[in-house]
Amino acid sequence: MYFRHIYEDGLAQASYVIGCQASGEAIVIDPRRDIDVYLDVAEKEGLRIRYVTETHIHADFLSGARELAAATGAELLLSDEGGSDWRYQFPHRGLRGGEVIELGNLQLTILHTPGHTPEHISFLLTDTPASPHPLMLFTGDYVFVGDVGRPDLLEEAAHMQGTKEPAARTMFRSLRLFRELPDFVQVWPGHGAGSACGKALGAVPSSTVGYEKLSNWALQIEDDDRFVRELLSGQPEPPPYFARMKKLNKEGPGILGSLPHPTRLALTRFHQLWQDGVLIVDTRDKLAFAGGHVPGSLNIQDTRSFSTWAGWMLSEDQPFVLIADERRIDDLSRALIRIGLDDVAGYLPNLRQWTQMGNPLTVLAQITAPELYARLRSNEVQVIDVRAHSEYIESHIPGAIHIHAGHLVHHLDEIPRHKPVVINCLGGYRSSVAASYLQAQGFTQVINLTGGIRSWWAERYPVETGDEVSAMPA
Amino acid sequence: MYFRHIYEDGLAQASYVIGCQASGEAIVIDPRRDIDVYLDVAEKEGLRIRYVTETHIHADFLSGARELAAATGAELLLSDEGGSDWRYQFPHRGLRGGEVIELGNLQLTILHTPGHTPEHISFLLTDTPASPHPLMLFTGDYVFVGDVGRPDLLEEAAHMQGTKEPAARTMFRSLRLFRELPDFVQVWPGHGAGSACGKALGAVPSSTVGYEKLSNWALQIEDDDRFVRELLSGQPEPPPYFARMKKLNKEGPGILGSLPHPTRLALTRFHQLWQDGVLIVDTRDKLAFAGGHVPGSLNIQDTRSFSTWAGWMLSEDQPFVLIADERRIDDLSRALIRIGLDDVAGYLPNLRQWTQMGNPLTVLAQITAPELYARLRSNEVQVIDVRAHSEYIESHIPGAIHIHAGHLVHHLDEIPRHKPVVINCLGGYRSSVAASYLQAQGFTQVINLTGGIRSWWAERYPVETGDEVSAMPA
Amino acid sequence: MYFRHIYEDGLAQASYVIGCQASGEAIVIDPRRDIDVYLDVAEKEGLRIRYVTETHIHADFLSGARELAAATGAELLLSDEGGSDWRYQFPHRGLRGGEVIELGNLQLTILHTPGHTPEHISFLLTDTPASPHPLMLFTGDYVFVGDVGRPDLLEEAAHMQGTKEPAARTMFRSLRLFRELPDFVQVWPGHGAGSACGKALGAVPSSTVGYEKLSNWALQIEDDDRFVRELLSGQPEPPPYFARMKKLNKEGPGILGSLPHPTRLALTRFHQLWQDGVLIVDTRDKLAFAGGHVPGSLNIQDTRSFSTWAGWMLSEDQPFVLIADERRIDDLSRALIRIGLDDVAGYLPNLRQWTQMGNPLTVLAQITAPELYARLRSNEVQVIDVRAHSEYIESHIPGAIHIHAGHLVHHLDEIPRHKPVVINCLGGYRSSVAASYLQAQGFTQVINLTGGIRSWWAERYPVETGDEVSAMPA
Amino acid sequence: MYFRHIYEDGLAQASYVIGCQASGEAIVIDPRRDIDVYLDVAEKEGLRIRYVTETHIHADFLSGARELAAATGAELLLSDEGGSDWRYQFPHRGLRGGEVIELGNLQLTILHTPGHTPEHISFLLTDTPASPHPLMLFTGDYVFVGDVGRPDLLEEAAHMQGTKEPAARTMFRSLRLFRELPDFVQVWPGHGAGSACGKALGAVPSSTVGYEKLSNWALQIEDDDRFVRELLSGQPEPPPYFARMKKLNKEGPGILGSLPHPTRLALTRFHQLWQDGVLIVDTRDKLAFAGGHVPGSLNIQDTRSFSTWAGWMLSEDQPFVLIADERRIDDLSRALIRIGLDDVAGYLPNLRQWTQMGNPLTVLAQITAPELYARLRSNEVQVIDVRAHSEYIESHIPGAIHIHAGHLVHHLDEIPRHKPVVINCLGGYRSSVAASYLQAQGFTQVINLTGGIRSWWAERYPVETGDEVSAMPA
Repeated sequence: MYFRHIYEDGLAQASYVIGCQASGEAIVIDPRRDIDVYLDVAEKEGLRIRYVTETHIHADFLSGARELAAATGAELLLSDEGGSDWRYQFPHRGLRGGEVIELGNLQLTILHTPGHTPEHISFLLTDTPASPHPLMLFTGDYVFVGDVGRPDLLEEAAHMQGTKEPAARTMFRSLRLFRELPDFVQVWPGHGAGSACGKALGAVPSSTVGYEKLSNWALQIEDDDRFVRELLSGQPEPPPYFARMKKLNKEGPGILGSLPHPTRLALTRFHQLWQDGVLIVDTRDKLAFAGGHVPGSLNIQDTRSFSTWAGWMLSEDQPFVLIADERRIDDLSRALIRIGLDDVAGYLPNLRQWTQMGNPLTVLAQITAPELYARLRSNEVQVIDVRAHSEYIESHIPGAIHIHAGHLVHHLDEIPRHKPVVINCLGGYRSSVAASYLQAQGFTQVINLTGGIRSWWAERYPVETGDEVSAMPA
Repeated sequence: MYFRHIYEDGLAQASYVIGCQASGEAIVIDPRRDIDVYLDVAEKEGLRIRYVTETHIHADFLSGARELAAATGAELLLSDEGGSDWRYQFPHRGLRGGEVIELGNLQLTILHTPGHTPEHISFLLTDTPASPHPLMLFTGDYVFVGDVGRPDLLEEAAHMQGTKEPAARTMFRSLRLFRELPDFVQVWPGHGAGSACGKALGAVPSSTVGYEKLSNWALQIEDDDRFVRELLSGQPEPPPYFARMKKLNKEGPGILGSLPHPTRLALTRFHQLWQDGVLIVDTRDKLAFAGGHVPGSLNIQDTRSFSTWAGWMLSEDQPFVLIADERRIDDLSRALIRIGLDDVAGYLPNLRQWTQMGNPLTVLAQITAPELYARLRSNEVQVIDVRAHSEYIESHIPGAIHIHAGHLVHHLDEIPRHKPVVINCLGGYRSSVAASYLQAQGFTQVINLTGGIRSWWAERYPVETGDEVSAMPA
Repeated sequence: MYFRHIYEDGLAQASYVIGCQASGEAIVIDPRRDIDVYLDVAEKEGLRIRYVTETHIHADFLSGARELAAATGAELLLSDEGGSDWRYQFPHRGLRGGEVIELGNLQLTILHTPGHTPEHISFLLTDTPASPHPLMLFTGDYVFVGDVGRPDLLEEAAHMQGTKEPAARTMFRSLRLFRELPDFVQVWPGHGAGSACGKALGAVPSSTVGYEKLSNWALQIEDDDRFVRELLSGQPEPPPYFARMKKLNKEGPGILGSLPHPTRLALTRFHQLWQDGVLIVDTRDKLAFAGGHVPGSLNIQDTRSFSTWAGWMLSEDQPFVLIADERRIDDLSRALIRIGLDDVAGYLPNLRQWTQMGNPLTVLAQITAPELYARLRSNEVQVIDVRAHSEYIESHIPGAIHIHAGHLVHHLDEIPRHKPVVINCLGGYRSSVAASYLQAQGFTQVINLTGGIRSWWAERYPVETGDEVSAMPA
Repeated sequence: MYFRHIYEDGLAQASYVIGCQASGEAIVIDPRRDIDVYLDVAEKEGLRIRYVTETHIHADFLSGARELAAATGAELLLSDEGGSDWRYQFPHRGLRGGEVIELGNLQLTILHTPGHTPEHISFLLTDTPASPHPLMLFTGDYVFVGDVGRPDLLEEAAHMQGTKEPAARTMFRSLRLFRELPDFVQVWPGHGAGSACGKALGAVPSSTVGYEKLSNWALQIEDDDRFVRELLSGQPEPPPYFARMKKLNKEGPGILGSLPHPTRLALTRFHQLWQDGVLIVDTRDKLAFAGGHVPGSLNIQDTRSFSTWAGWMLSEDQPFVLIADERRIDDLSRALIRIGLDDVAGYLPNLRQWTQMGNPLTVLAQITAPELYARLRSNEVQVIDVRAHSEYIESHIPGAIHIHAGHLVHHLDEIPRHKPVVINCLGGYRSSVAASYLQAQGFTQVINLTGGIRSWWAERYPVETGDEVSAMPA
């Protein structure tokens, strides 16, 4: 048996290639949209991709299942569970709980595991030549390492009122199935730490049934109501693009055929687009952005958080161009198509020519923790904390008000226009997104807290270095 | 003044960026179709491309003038000389002999220099702050280093009967203008050695008026008729795609917007295309191709001759896929769009999976010069020399018949099907193209002369090594 | 907790980075010698590598533990078990069974697990904030997925007579420890399929204690003697470089400081080295090698088997140069330093200039399965099967004699010099190594079976396609 | 004939490959130290590098002549003119004025052309099959496009008192030779615009004898004394490394064998080196540097000026590490070895981990032109103009004092420590070098004028955009 865990850092998303070397065939579970990684594996391992499947209708990324099936001639196997509202609306062979996919010497038994979504299925894999016992369970967004899938996305992101509590109860029932599996079965979920699909996902890629039974909070609770209460509390804010992904994944995402390559823009063209009001997304380092940027541009740094914040701040209806190093365009373009942003209007490789030609640059003022401390005492500034609500609740700078960076659009009138506002997050990524957004909205006294609340903590509590570091995105 | 000679090896084609740093503006002469090289120069030098122009309606490559103007907002300046049949059929500002393009402190005076084509113009550049005297002449296909433009392409490639002799006479008259220029003026032509646009082009990128007057054969002849005779004799066979290029360049090549990126094919997809009769173009080394290739595939090696032989052997009407290393796809795709082959159906990175899956491979038999010598004596084989006619005339293997590799399609019935045929060229590139083409046409006893006629010479005349090496493509 | 499984395909070797985000510290287990992969992980995850450790004194690759400790200032933690003969001979902090390494909130308990080697240890990891139960066991060459470490390397490779049976008994005893661990514990071994450190390693990267108890052959046997018998039978031939690795890893491999970069050779230099008898290692595709190669050169193709066959065929005492694409030199150089071949004398990017300058090329004749069948009937050729002994035993071409490709050096007198010899392996990789070696040794009638025994089977048993495909290297 | 002009932007330095295709041989003139570019050309063109030569003992870069001869086995041909003080001190075949180098059908006649240096020679090339007349003159630092070589480097950089005037007179005499050559001969010099080897070098790569006679200022002056006066006035300040280059090039630069590759540093290592006082050279964009940098680090941006400023600010005696993108390390390392800085102590790819681990960052304050204008009126700040003296003389900000960025080390006591100092150059490159240097020297109130004097001009004289742009480095 061949097995490969393919992890996409930006969305903390896992896909799997499982192959039978005896028959030379493979199946891919939950492929992403830039599918060359699977063609590569198939080529190197001498396998033919015969089936493409997925655990559920994803909300956090655009599925590559259709793309991969089209490119390889593989058969699309998709869940027909969950009722007619949750049926994939494009050609596929339907799967139901209890069915078995045969792949050479391998067997994948379908388990219907609703809760995160009604049609959600999991795959229990048996490698028959090695053992009649099951080897692995591919859980998608059913059971994560240390957590279970959140049942509230439909309500929070797709605004289907009244769905989250019933879904949480469904999840409780689904977990019974998990408890019945042997301890030794490996658990390979659809996400790792940092995904918005669960609140407490661990950074370890896989677990076992037995270990989860002992350690996963959701499997420690025997009481139905308490489970529902705990599951629904403290979930991170889902980005607005989730609703759109869900819809597209159900209807069938468009097939790309080949990866798009954004056009490099001549400066005159870029200048024209900027004057026409096309959004400039500046992917440079936050320090460089602070040092000088094109007026009105948005800073979404080119780190693993790029997809997520592109998902929060951009939409397919609003054209935008990138400022990004030529060698990074391919990766950034992939990050964007994974969430359905296929049409980048072009890119400018850097700001050298822009500056040299005498075009304007805006600075983003910085403040350090000690300076902030001094100015807070004289009540000169307003701090805005743009982290997740749960982070704010745990600890924040005195007097700070909380507005999630991705929700600023709805709260602009709560922000003072005639007083300096200091934006903070944990380490500076999100505050740079937020501060640049506010500058673009006409706020003229925006200041970024250099180093985020981490530097504040370091300043206020200098001894306890290290303790406060978390796995949250900066 | 800023000056940059940009040379494209595959088509032996030169374009020029000339800028005035004082005004921050530039003009590009004869741009190729993958225009990022000009955007790069502009970005690095802090110049705005204000004008795009060309010397004439090119036949050997698809012009990038429209593409570059569209990408930069530059103004298109194109010849309106030569009469209504030679008028560009898309929007541009017309240029006429005697006009002057002002670019900051620079002046480009238009010279009407017909002969190669009726509308052909040259640009005489003066750098006014440095000197009132002219500095450079951009000659396009008017005067090359050691040669002049061929006047017979319209007749040979576009089948416009009876045009080549009058055009040769026009060239004779045009050269008077050249003779009147000062000796010290630099000459920067549109092509270097290896182009099919002239028969004796030197490998030196530039010359001077004075040096050409002394050394260029065409400027040594005083007699009209003799000039015409010599100019029309011994010109290399033009590829058939020249006629199409000419037409497209006049009507206006389609604007790409961004560079196409061929799709990587899953093996199943590739296999299907192969079964459907889609042409496989194998760009691997000729030795690897000889060792084993997909039945029916054509070997056009990935060297600087790739564009030229793709132009000879492929057409925009016939879909094809590539076998090429992933890291070479971008360059190969550029080579193809430069001659208007924009729609590659995809590519396979190598033959590993093909072989591993048990698909068929064909071998291309090789023969060495000593073996060939032995077999020729017993009259067992027929040698086919696929070089240019002029090369064949100079020296060939005894008994060899001549068919230009690019003309095989019209001469298949002259080739024996029931006897081994040995294909030779100079060094093995063209014979591998030809031999693979014959195999694809059902010839089963095709043998390649390893090392070409070079190895034959080395075998027969072992002492005189080196002498026979020429600048011709292998 | 942060966890990363880093797998090196060429040696089928796994290393691990385990970090505690709370303390910002990490430990690396069994690092390879090109350590930038670990620095990358540390940089991206914001972790400081505090400890470097390994499971045992490796035989199949040169350890990167000293290199990584030197580069990061990390502490070296190495086994002090196994007696004085097995003590690392360079500074380190010694580890003993039962000790615990604390890393922030993580605990790694040392288990002494001899058998493969006397000093072998395993690491039982507990992630205390998640659960007091153990999460993972890092087993090195103790327990693999579906197999256990071979105890005979010291005897086979290092010629320590009489050690393999006692070692096998030790392994039997060590396995008791494994049986006592909870079923749910994940098992992360030091090798995957294709390593010479075990005979039946699966291609799945990890397992669980419970699954191995049910499926691993070694854990099904209750009888001491039978276990020893089975464990010692059918182990693959170990390459001779294993003995040297063992010695160097114990004494302490030299510290590189930075990765070596082989020098690109001018053709004259390459030619000189070739004339001086320096070995040419040609990494091109076997089809290209067959089509033409430098006389006397050895074909070790640039695939994932490169390290292994470089280990078999090359030694640190014999200078050699590579023929390899410029873009592949970095990867090939890494593959070589991983097995202690640090001093490549240089490389030539391809054979174009060699050929163009008229230097000699040798062809490697190919034969297809049907042709071989015909010639075998008339007894014209001798087949030499160069696969592993176990593969030969299972099935071979009638009349074939067996000589492992890596043992040819000791069996040259068994090979006929005045009769064509046909070399076969499974798919063509090893036969190309072997055939090129024989040509270099002066055998003039060497023929390669195109497609290996796979093509023979496909020819003889056309129906049963696919069945014979194995995970063995081609 | 084959001809290739190879231009290295960073040092504005030209080298030449000239080949005879008939004999398959080539000569390289003035090679740089990273010689793979010449091996590439030779490989692609099928040429053997038979000779390596140079025009003179260079001062502005370390010669690659020995390196290339060692790598290829080519013969080293070097000037024996100029007297015993100017003799190369390592094995070579000496060249004298009037001698002819034969290379196949080509002839290179040696002209002794002292002035820039006593041993300086030029090469007059004749392509005998094309014409008996000379084609090209390779002038090194004798005649540039629009200028002649400066004769004062020995005095200014190597402190050989009293040499510059006699050398200028020698140059005057040498130019007589140039005047006697035919107008049509092409002139290919050793440098283009931006080199410190001449004061008024044009940006055009080549010229002709006739054009230079008409336009080069140095050839317009008939009077000996006036020529000397003009030649010696207004020459740019030579960097201090020139003296060392001169010495090394005469004695023979060390042979690298292969290109060095700086080691990537783990953060702990980098931190240790920083604490030990090793200089940090931060190559990031000046805006990013301004936004935050490691305390004490020097900003030398990774643009084409990198070599030059590395030459000014670094020395081979002082260890330093780089902060630079991984993909840029190869280019930066080449830029450094070209001026003899072979031993980079390592590099850190970016500041992410540094920041995340809570290490300190320093900001470089910025001021815009309008702000500066306001503060200058109230006399609050001192402006330091760090451009070349000639630039300062032409125009500067009122009240600015002039200290060349590269001479700050000798003028630190002229800079106020208790008042804000505003650093300006033309566009911001040099002021960022200078400002970071002053911060490292303990100046705490250093401010950079964003956009340099260009932005000041744009502010004060808004209409005349563009006019002030020059070819000077920013």
